Amino acid sequence: MTLSNADALMEIIKGRRSIRSYRDEDVDDEKINKLLEAARWAPSAGNRQPWYFVVVRDKHIRKRLAAAAFEQTWMIEAPVHIVVLADKERSGSCYGERGRTLYCIQDTAMAIQNMLLMAHALGLGTCFVGAFDEDLVAEIIGVPRSMRPIAIITVGYPAEYPPPRVRRPLEEIVSYEKYEKTP
Amino acid sequence: MTLSNADALMEIIKGRRSIRSYRDEDVDDEKINKLLEAARWAPSAGNRQPWYFVVVRDKHIRKRLAAAAFEQTWMIEAPVHIVVLADKERSGSCYGERGRTLYCIQDTAMAIQNMLLMAHALGLGTCFVGAFDEDLVAEIIGVPRSMRPIAIITVGYPAEYPPPRVRRPLEEIVSYEKYEKTP
Repeated sequence: MTLSNADALMEIIKGRRSIRSYRDEDVDDEKINKLLEAARWAPSAGNRQPWYFVVVRDKHIRKRLAAAAFEQTWMIEAPVHIVVLADKERSGSCYGERGRTLYCIQDTAMAIQNMLLMAHALGLGTCFVGAFDEDLVAEIIGVPRSMRPIAIITVGYPAEYPPPRVRRPLEEIVSYEKYEKTP
Repeated sequence: MTLSNADALMEIIKGRRSIRSYRDEDVDDEKINKLLEAARWAPSAGNRQPWYFVVVRDKHIRKRLAAAAFEQTWMIEAPVHIVVLADKERSGSCYGERGRTLYCIQDTAMAIQNMLLMAHALGLGTCFVGAFDEDLVAEIIGVPRSMRPIAIITVGYPAEYPPPRVRRPLEEIVSYEKYEKTP
């Protein structure tokens, strides 16, 4: 890898935004497949890959998902929702409770971050929706009890490009050798 | 963003490996800062940024961390360990139990994925170590109860480049409109 790859990556990481307004334009399967391809190359504890993705284009289902996300009606504008499931038993069968409540959450989150970055690099906008009624989403999508819906990712062509949210400075979130309370 | 940025990103995502053998060579602060910079630009629920990073170079402390990770002595070879803490109360104060047990885990994992990708783009190797005694790591690093050590990232110049771990095919991890049990 060259330094310019690192520069390109930093640009993608810093340029990504949470997009809550979308153009009325569909996203083709090829691009959605690139998001999923990026997701499946995430690392996972013991290579268990405890993830599953339900790609939703049906408007009626998207409406129900938006309702399950406590009436976040802006979500309906996005032509694609990707419901991300954490397969608790894939991790739990190897790692017990730590697998079910920690590893499968971390692994799916890393897969999601790959998707968010890839989407931005492809000119797509996304938003990580984490606030929803899990039971209701599970019911809408028909998910078995061993799997947990842990995110709905909205995907589409952005109709906005908001300024970056302020980030905490490194001095506040980093210390050396030992934890040090921030000033 | 151009398509070539997406291609560069896919190359970084697919080229990253978990590295457990390192060259005897230090990593300068500039590169470590790029990892931390990548981390802080991750998305987080409500922009709470519930993360904290302790950068450990001291060999004695690295030995203790390796011991706390159930004697993964290979970790000591890595000149830098980054202990990642999830700040449960930063998320919990906004989102209650869901913040403490889900959002802060997801947010820190996405920050970690940014670091792993940036490290690879810079020619560094990393490994996400998730198996360790949390209480012991908290004690070694001096972490308050409100924060949870959820990963130790080893960082250094790789002395190995293992083949990719096999990934589950998309057919097994993706369905459309509804969840479908994989064949």
